[in-house]
Amino acid sequence: MHKIYEYPKSREYFARAAAVIPSGIYGHQGPAEGCYIPVEAFPLFSERAEGTYFWDVDGNRFIDYMCAYGPNVLGYNDPDVDAAAAAQRKKGDCVTAPSTKMIEFAELLVDTVASADWAFFAKNGNDVTTLSIMAARAYTRRKKIVFFKGYYHGVSPWTQKIDYPGIIEEDVANNIYIPWNDVSAFEQAIAENPGQIAAVISQPYMHGNFKDNELPAEGFWKKIRKLCTDNGIVLVIDDVRAGFRLDLAGSDHYYGFEADLICFCKAIANGYNVSALCGKDFLKSTVSGMTYTGSYWLSAVPFAAGIACITKMRELDLPRLLLEKGLKLKEGLIAAGKKHGFDLHVSGEPALFYLRIADDDTLMLHQEWIAECVKRGVFFTNHHNHFLNYALSDGDIAETVSIADEAFAVVANRRG
Amino acid sequence: MHKIYEYPKSREYFARAAAVIPSGIYGHQGPAEGCYIPVEAFPLFSERAEGTYFWDVDGNRFIDYMCAYGPNVLGYNDPDVDAAAAAQRKKGDCVTAPSTKMIEFAELLVDTVASADWAFFAKNGNDVTTLSIMAARAYTRRKKIVFFKGYYHGVSPWTQKIDYPGIIEEDVANNIYIPWNDVSAFEQAIAENPGQIAAVISQPYMHGNFKDNELPAEGFWKKIRKLCTDNGIVLVIDDVRAGFRLDLAGSDHYYGFEADLICFCKAIANGYNVSALCGKDFLKSTVSGMTYTGSYWLSAVPFAAGIACITKMRELDLPRLLLEKGLKLKEGLIAAGKKHGFDLHVSGEPALFYLRIADDDTLMLHQEWIAECVKRGVFFTNHHNHFLNYALSDGDIAETVSIADEAFAVVANRRG
Repeated sequence: MHKIYEYPKSREYFARAAAVIPSGIYGHQGPAEGCYIPVEAFPLFSERAEGTYFWDVDGNRFIDYMCAYGPNVLGYNDPDVDAAAAAQRKKGDCVTAPSTKMIEFAELLVDTVASADWAFFAKNGNDVTTLSIMAARAYTRRKKIVFFKGYYHGVSPWTQKIDYPGIIEEDVANNIYIPWNDVSAFEQAIAENPGQIAAVISQPYMHGNFKDNELPAEGFWKKIRKLCTDNGIVLVIDDVRAGFRLDLAGSDHYYGFEADLICFCKAIANGYNVSALCGKDFLKSTVSGMTYTGSYWLSAVPFAAGIACITKMRELDLPRLLLEKGLKLKEGLIAAGKKHGFDLHVSGEPALFYLRIADDDTLMLHQEWIAECVKRGVFFTNHHNHFLNYALSDGDIAETVSIADEAFAVVANRRG
Repeated sequence: MHKIYEYPKSREYFARAAAVIPSGIYGHQGPAEGCYIPVEAFPLFSERAEGTYFWDVDGNRFIDYMCAYGPNVLGYNDPDVDAAAAAQRKKGDCVTAPSTKMIEFAELLVDTVASADWAFFAKNGNDVTTLSIMAARAYTRRKKIVFFKGYYHGVSPWTQKIDYPGIIEEDVANNIYIPWNDVSAFEQAIAENPGQIAAVISQPYMHGNFKDNELPAEGFWKKIRKLCTDNGIVLVIDDVRAGFRLDLAGSDHYYGFEADLICFCKAIANGYNVSALCGKDFLKSTVSGMTYTGSYWLSAVPFAAGIACITKMRELDLPRLLLEKGLKLKEGLIAAGKKHGFDLHVSGEPALFYLRIADDDTLMLHQEWIAECVKRGVFFTNHHNHFLNYALSDGDIAETVSIADEAFAVVANRRG
């Protein structure tokens, strides 16, 4: 029997947070979003982190399958990345003139990412998805943008929904929404908007929330790529979430095509704060002519960290290792569910697996099971894809499966 | 006679940068913008930084009056801020659940900033100016935004100009532009757009580029504040550039009024990557309901740095010290100019002084003088405000005035 965690200090801290921060904790990490249901099962504040674990403020240790929602790809406090960052910090971080680490980092990305002829750095995924749309509009002198339903490309007004607070119709007036994996819908959009579509923006596969993640259908990307080329549409891949976990050369390369622009963040520097837009030569002068910068965008420490992170991921051939870990975990979790009569669906790519117990369409059974896992030290969330990191060991996977098994037993017993 | 700097390595590195980065170096720090004219006089890459100095890749040392365009407020590599950041880094930075440093930082801002009932953290000034506009629209259910001509509020489409690359008319369809310090223009905008103005966004004073900076006229802010209150318009102060250098309680407090929302970045954490939107209670639930987050927004290291930075600025009563340094420098520079027959205008607040030699409307004389200063180790720029930091000593100011004097002599001699 695994110990059952309690979170009294997390609750106290949350009350303090809610007094001075809107919603207490905002975004995915906060209880206002749908990731934490029931919120009582989840810790809300961390005290420290190391490798694949974090410890909450109540002293509970978690095997962490969210990896800070992506950035933790080599393990928290990876010694190689931290050493490179610390060495740069002694020299300088945010300085009037940039460090040459910026050049080295761009050169490394161009050498690593198949569709990258150049790199442009910023701080958030949102910064670079927004730049990609502006660049596509500047280059094509067209306005319209095609999105695949279920998308997430950040929080700028152009990518939010009309019914979200603070969004006005002008923000989304040029957005066209089509179903995932639907080539004919894209053809129809082109036919209905002749010479008007600047870009299509998409994740490499559909890793949306609240439903099974969907891989690209056979031939899908090849057809989309050709339609873009034939119609002068800029093909933007938002690889913020999947980037470097499937293929160090980019998730477009993984699926056998090349994007015109590709957006990276999260796994690019193991948690140091940097993002990148990479792209093809034909768009370089367009991006050169744009007004786009930020106070910290040339900070040298995240560049040094990013160089160390990508270098280490290359040395490890990390995507292969994450695939192996993911397949092992998937197999163990499905078997544990089956043992107790549950049909656990594990969708998406194994390095970013999405979980759903398919026996109950209300998702409540799934939420019950997730809660029992979390309270025993396996940090899953209900309706968001998960993330793997290099520090996750076979022992951690075995412990995870053991806890998942016990959680299935608890839920099966409760449901009778 | 001061040594004349040369920059062969900066040139070599720039060629390498231009091969893999659009425009080589983008933003203010790059040669494509108007800050560096003639670009040959300026170093382009730094090797290290300490206190008020940075050293370029050619080994030249500069007394740095740009302070990384603002973030360096206590001196590069401030030992207290760096120690706090390093201690937090050992525990964790970007983790699935946030650190309680986030709460402490919000509590400290609420205690420090007069108009802050709460704080929301992000990464760029642009993130929080954009959130302020979205929040104002969500709260008022109105669309229009009033800007003061000469403004800079970041790089999101809503704040760029219609003739900038990648901007479409929908992005700026609801923008109203009025002259700085013109209360009657604001009254007219309200009259012409009844019940339609969501917000007015403004810097605390006009610190635009390419012209003398302008302080608020007597009574200006009191009248704007009243017009906003009377007409249900959200008053947003963009304190990204001036914040904490004029008054730790906010630049609105410095000028005797209270903003509804106030945006901070730059000086908030001495270069560690974090920004904040602070605001009044009546807007808290609106912001709580918004979809707004980013991969690194809950990173703990910048929070720890921000706590240390603001605590130290409070202990030092830093704005008073920066005012003293700024007045001393201003006096010395103006006297040096006068000695050689030049009318140097030093405008804006002394902690963020703007320079212009008023004897030549083409600005070329000014650019010549700036170039001679930079080549002797005083890092000024031509047409952007400057920034002071705590590490700038009386000796540095004396050396600056001595170099400025020599530069005036060179220019006077050349012009005959």
